[in-house]
Amino acid sequence: MNQEFNNMLNEFKAYLKDIEYLNSTSAVLYWDMRVCIPKKAIPYRGEILGYLSGEQYKLQTSDKMKEFIEYFSACDELDDVTKSMVENAKKEYDQTMKIPEYRYKEYVIATSNAEAAWEDAKEKSDFAIFKPHLQKVIDFNKEFIEYWGYKDSKYDTLLDFYEPGITTEKLDVLFGELRDAIVNLLDKIQNSDVKIDVSPFNKSFSKESQDEFGKFVLQKMGFDFNAGRVDESVHPFTINFDNKDVRITTHYYENEFRSALFSSIHEGGHAIYEQDVPDSLKGTLLASGASMGIHESQSRFYENIIGRSKAFWTCFFPEVQKRFPQFKDVCFEDFYKGINVVNSSLIRTESDELTYSLHIIIRYELEKAIINGDVNVDDLPDMWNEKYKEYLGVEPKSDAEGILQDMHWSGGSFGYFPSYALGNLYGAQFLNAMKKDIPDLYENIKNGNLNVIHLWLKDNIHQYGKVYKPEELIKKVTGDTLSSKYFIDYLNNKYSEIYNL
Amino acid sequence: MNQEFNNMLNEFKAYLKDIEYLNSTSAVLYWDMRVCIPKKAIPYRGEILGYLSGEQYKLQTSDKMKEFIEYFSACDELDDVTKSMVENAKKEYDQTMKIPEYRYKEYVIATSNAEAAWEDAKEKSDFAIFKPHLQKVIDFNKEFIEYWGYKDSKYDTLLDFYEPGITTEKLDVLFGELRDAIVNLLDKIQNSDVKIDVSPFNKSFSKESQDEFGKFVLQKMGFDFNAGRVDESVHPFTINFDNKDVRITTHYYENEFRSALFSSIHEGGHAIYEQDVPDSLKGTLLASGASMGIHESQSRFYENIIGRSKAFWTCFFPEVQKRFPQFKDVCFEDFYKGINVVNSSLIRTESDELTYSLHIIIRYELEKAIINGDVNVDDLPDMWNEKYKEYLGVEPKSDAEGILQDMHWSGGSFGYFPSYALGNLYGAQFLNAMKKDIPDLYENIKNGNLNVIHLWLKDNIHQYGKVYKPEELIKKVTGDTLSSKYFIDYLNNKYSEIYNL
Repeated sequence: MNQEFNNMLNEFKAYLKDIEYLNSTSAVLYWDMRVCIPKKAIPYRGEILGYLSGEQYKLQTSDKMKEFIEYFSACDELDDVTKSMVENAKKEYDQTMKIPEYRYKEYVIATSNAEAAWEDAKEKSDFAIFKPHLQKVIDFNKEFIEYWGYKDSKYDTLLDFYEPGITTEKLDVLFGELRDAIVNLLDKIQNSDVKIDVSPFNKSFSKESQDEFGKFVLQKMGFDFNAGRVDESVHPFTINFDNKDVRITTHYYENEFRSALFSSIHEGGHAIYEQDVPDSLKGTLLASGASMGIHESQSRFYENIIGRSKAFWTCFFPEVQKRFPQFKDVCFEDFYKGINVVNSSLIRTESDELTYSLHIIIRYELEKAIINGDVNVDDLPDMWNEKYKEYLGVEPKSDAEGILQDMHWSGGSFGYFPSYALGNLYGAQFLNAMKKDIPDLYENIKNGNLNVIHLWLKDNIHQYGKVYKPEELIKKVTGDTLSSKYFIDYLNNKYSEIYNL
Repeated sequence: MNQEFNNMLNEFKAYLKDIEYLNSTSAVLYWDMRVCIPKKAIPYRGEILGYLSGEQYKLQTSDKMKEFIEYFSACDELDDVTKSMVENAKKEYDQTMKIPEYRYKEYVIATSNAEAAWEDAKEKSDFAIFKPHLQKVIDFNKEFIEYWGYKDSKYDTLLDFYEPGITTEKLDVLFGELRDAIVNLLDKIQNSDVKIDVSPFNKSFSKESQDEFGKFVLQKMGFDFNAGRVDESVHPFTINFDNKDVRITTHYYENEFRSALFSSIHEGGHAIYEQDVPDSLKGTLLASGASMGIHESQSRFYENIIGRSKAFWTCFFPEVQKRFPQFKDVCFEDFYKGINVVNSSLIRTESDELTYSLHIIIRYELEKAIINGDVNVDDLPDMWNEKYKEYLGVEPKSDAEGILQDMHWSGGSFGYFPSYALGNLYGAQFLNAMKKDIPDLYENIKNGNLNVIHLWLKDNIHQYGKVYKPEELIKKVTGDTLSSKYFIDYLNNKYSEIYNL
């Protein structure tokens, strides 16, 4: 029996390794398509990616896979890794197999058309162009939820794909508290006397000097340049081929100092996570981050909690002044405030640390209404605009800067947005635990010893890859279930000081 | 019947397309490994490439493949493309299937070990380290030839893999004539009063300016930057993912003007060939160059026959003087002579247009002796050194600059070297035909109208991909079988003028 079990386990891992090979292969081809590919090669590259995902589909849905899952699901007393490996494989198997194949193929075409329609609609700032496609994608998602099944709320089924264990019930509380706190804080900030001058950040900064400084910061953070690289692309992203090859991209604006820098730090947070996943998890499908939300907690932790802190810039500001004469006459305090300025913006990707979560909560509230069936697609632009007015005090003047700004829905990614704000909550709760473990945390940061952070994250989070579910992980690391209070306290403290509240 | 035939044909092409997808995928991963990959990622990338080649092997040796080959081999009156497609597939199938799988696996390990041993041996300049591995690789090749079968000469079987139709009998004549002609010409040159000063080429040239100029020349040649790109790597190479994505690399030396430039032109010749292969050949395995030798004819044609011609530099020398003040005081004649200087060198990759073929002929003569069994591996270094002394008048002082300089044999690529010199012969014979078709060829080149060359090559050679065998192609294009006289005449004319013979 034990011998049989071990043989089966080795066989299963070898099988999953092939899936990982295909995954990694597609990732290289995708990265190349975003960073290197010549224009005319894009259609053929699309064909190849289609072929590879078809091969992966075959492996993921084979009888062999079913056999493995059935065998191991019937085994008692599996260790944590094996248990999680089997659960993950089963979840993905069910997610795929419960949908009739012909409907899934139609869905792929529908989303592909919707993506094209969204691009067109955004360019022309005309929601009407996108509307029928969005309706179709929504209908497909609702149909699929029926196949997959649901308990209390249909939307929960989608949430669970991105953030296992998260439900509408939990988010209503967490996001409700967070929304009220931010709206309240934002109101005070808008009535504050403190005015922040950001003009120094909009001088001219060469791409090369931004690139060099970004890499300097990444190196200090602990990004391993022998196991990854940094390139430029239209939109910044992180992609991992395996833990030894994690690549990030950024986009340089010559008249904006903060954009490329903070997106490098953000993507660096994702990348360090993936670089730290241990080799031992290869062949389990668990060699990656725990969830979208936990991943986002790492990137936002580095970008905001560390990267926009006083301690961090106590260390790096002298380096900035050395490299960029543009900041010669800027004092530390003004620099610090400039990277933490709060502005109610219409566009999520341009928003600051404080208001970012409001953009997400708006999307969460709309998605919940859409999927649970209380809203007509025609009404979405108005609902969107009203919420922006209510929470952020700004009103989109066009569909492009309102309902059409994100491409997520065109690809059917309902349930994905909440991860971004969950990342903020996780991050602050991790910070709380980290401060207990490292009492002189900020002294270390001031001295540029960012390694203490990296080691703590590696020990407490990164080394587990995807073995634990987010709720297990947060409990394990912080001793508490997920709460909004840590992030709300963090925001209140930080902005009270900056804006003299 | 017709309906059945068409169905089978479509099915076969779809099947071959999957093989092409895997081919293209591996090529992207390989390119990335040479140009982009971070150091620690190399072992896993090797694993993935192994996995992908295993998948490709499965497709190439499946029962399905056998069925296709048997069906179409029994069909009469196939059109040229289909006939060639079936022949090629059958040739590859036989090449693989005639070797017992376990022996092939052992061979892969043997060559992999031999490659490592060669590296070590070269570094230490000690043939003894490489010798037992070389012996093993040779023994495997001889064993495989027994499986594959042979007619007159065992070596012919290997030659045929790289240059279908070429035999020892033919090469003995072609290379014999060429060797005697070059040795004779070299002797005269070495006694000539003309001394060429190359010191201007060894001033300092920034990487950026070399890169820009190289791309300028490639653009003029007809390299399509929307269907390819240029990067830097340790050794220059060309790789095609498909006809819309053909990438070349070069290597810049800041104290050598000619190296990167002529390797860009050389690789550009390969690349333009691949870019010109028509879409219609996708799904036939024929969407690439006709053979190694024909490929090399295109690269050498651009590099030497065009790229080192007076007409070419009549057009580009003013541009050089504009971009590189280092050549301000150099006259056109001296520049032209400097890029055509003849020097008997010990190292193949550093040799000039004239003596290059001698390096190849030496390797041909040794390989023939090795494979046909007339030579002991112990004697190879001495044989090598004697031939270098006899033909080129130089003597290696170490194994590293003699027998160990090339890695080809460690990988088992016996039969590959002759393609390089065949490329020279094909190229000169093509030139002869081109001059007949375009009487004002050199006027066009002088005026920078390189497009006439590109169009002629596309019409006569590139558009056919791998449909015709080299001997069919040369006959079709030049009306003649391959001959050494065109290249010998070309060399005599060119060097008589340069060296006042």
